[in-house]
Amino acid sequence: MISRQQLIDQIKQKRSFLCVGLDTDINKIPQFLLDYPDPVFEFNKRIIDATKDLCVAYKPNSAFYECMGVKGLQSLVATWEYLPKDILSIIDAKRGDIGNTSDKYAQAFLDEKSSGMSFDAITVTPYMGNDSITPYLKYDGKWIIILALTSSIGSKDFQYLETNEGLLYETVIKKANTWAGADRLMYVVGATKSTEFTAIRQYAPDNFLLVPGVGAQGGSLADVCKYGITKDCGLIVNASRSIIYASNGPDFAEAARAEALSIQQQMEAELEKAGIL
Amino acid sequence: MISRQQLIDQIKQKRSFLCVGLDTDINKIPQFLLDYPDPVFEFNKRIIDATKDLCVAYKPNSAFYECMGVKGLQSLVATWEYLPKDILSIIDAKRGDIGNTSDKYAQAFLDEKSSGMSFDAITVTPYMGNDSITPYLKYDGKWIIILALTSSIGSKDFQYLETNEGLLYETVIKKANTWAGADRLMYVVGATKSTEFTAIRQYAPDNFLLVPGVGAQGGSLADVCKYGITKDCGLIVNASRSIIYASNGPDFAEAARAEALSIQQQMEAELEKAGIL
Repeated sequence: MISRQQLIDQIKQKRSFLCVGLDTDINKIPQFLLDYPDPVFEFNKRIIDATKDLCVAYKPNSAFYECMGVKGLQSLVATWEYLPKDILSIIDAKRGDIGNTSDKYAQAFLDEKSSGMSFDAITVTPYMGNDSITPYLKYDGKWIIILALTSSIGSKDFQYLETNEGLLYETVIKKANTWAGADRLMYVVGATKSTEFTAIRQYAPDNFLLVPGVGAQGGSLADVCKYGITKDCGLIVNASRSIIYASNGPDFAEAARAEALSIQQQMEAELEKAGIL
Repeated sequence: MISRQQLIDQIKQKRSFLCVGLDTDINKIPQFLLDYPDPVFEFNKRIIDATKDLCVAYKPNSAFYECMGVKGLQSLVATWEYLPKDILSIIDAKRGDIGNTSDKYAQAFLDEKSSGMSFDAITVTPYMGNDSITPYLKYDGKWIIILALTSSIGSKDFQYLETNEGLLYETVIKKANTWAGADRLMYVVGATKSTEFTAIRQYAPDNFLLVPGVGAQGGSLADVCKYGITKDCGLIVNASRSIIYASNGPDFAEAARAEALSIQQQMEAELEKAGIL
């Protein structure tokens, strides 16, 4: 369990607000790992070892494990077990269903006794509203990260709709903020829309924002910080492919570290610029 | 793979449009099943044997399996393997993520070679738009069932928002219908809002609608049919708890059959009333 204060302390200590996305694809990892009994876990383990002093969060993307069936889930459980418990662990699951079903998803990802895994945070999708999100709050100290604005092409289809209460993604933030505070709720905000951080900060001045889309998806760290950073930082910026696939040779972990270090150094400069360090 | 025509044929032949929801909870199944190596699968197997001539679809709810971790996923795979392949199999997963992640979710549920499971249909959530939904279309003949209007309390939070293109759930249907036809797309429409079927049928005149919420969630089958039935039926009505937990004694399968039979008989009357039989 990582509290808001612990997260802020980590950011200051590591001079970083980097989240390493573990979107591990067995078809993209170095060939030699395929000789190990659990190649996906072996890859993750080495990525974690190589980056854990440079990042404040890890985010396995559930789909990349689920696609391999039972074997994939075993890799995910092993990865969760291996994750350093002083670093925020986020399961990127984007779940959303009615109350009694959300209870089960909460068990799946937040309750070690039930499923073998207990992440610190879970991403959820807001379409079904309150009862699809609040069940996760029953787990003391766990974080819920709600999709607000994403960086994909499809975000234009619905997230930008003008509603009677503002743009849809703004409405999501405004309503969800009545369900829990900035000590339990974060939002996913796509980094390709950095000018919109200004609007989002109106409605979510204190919430941490999980920002995908820097790196392979094309967002700019400087823009994200310019518009999104707060006195507590308030940002966790994710990079997945640019780090974990920096090389697909035997030096992949070193290459991942070099890429993570380069991002951490940019982040350190931004933290200094914002007067946080 | 079940085509639209095969589904319609099944409905006419079985005189039913019942979907049995396999929301199997190990804490609610009869005690004696706990002596079996895979109690959840054993329960499902007997429910399937007892109801397969009365229903046209089965819908395992992924959360109920995921909450048990690796063991739960093994039960889900075993259940998929056991499901009669001439009956529509729906995985209720409500996934939704960017394109490259949706590809992985498609592998997880629609691609036996990848995950050990190949359901005929998957439920998805629309918040992230086009690229979160269309990857599933790459799988020939598979169905995508998009959340439109749900029967839970939280549906009021966002689904009913007035947007510049209509109520949000109407906008979802209108837009999604430009991505695929009624031979590939269905919508989830909660049965507690049966008067709204009239509006939905304006935008989705031919799509099959998957209707949860009859039974334990309180919807009325007569109302759903009055407003939602088409010349091809166009409805799949789900019941989960009312069937599978009809008894928690050793007679649970017989009790489930009796409940399914009672619903099938009501459905038969509705199909006759609509001139489909």
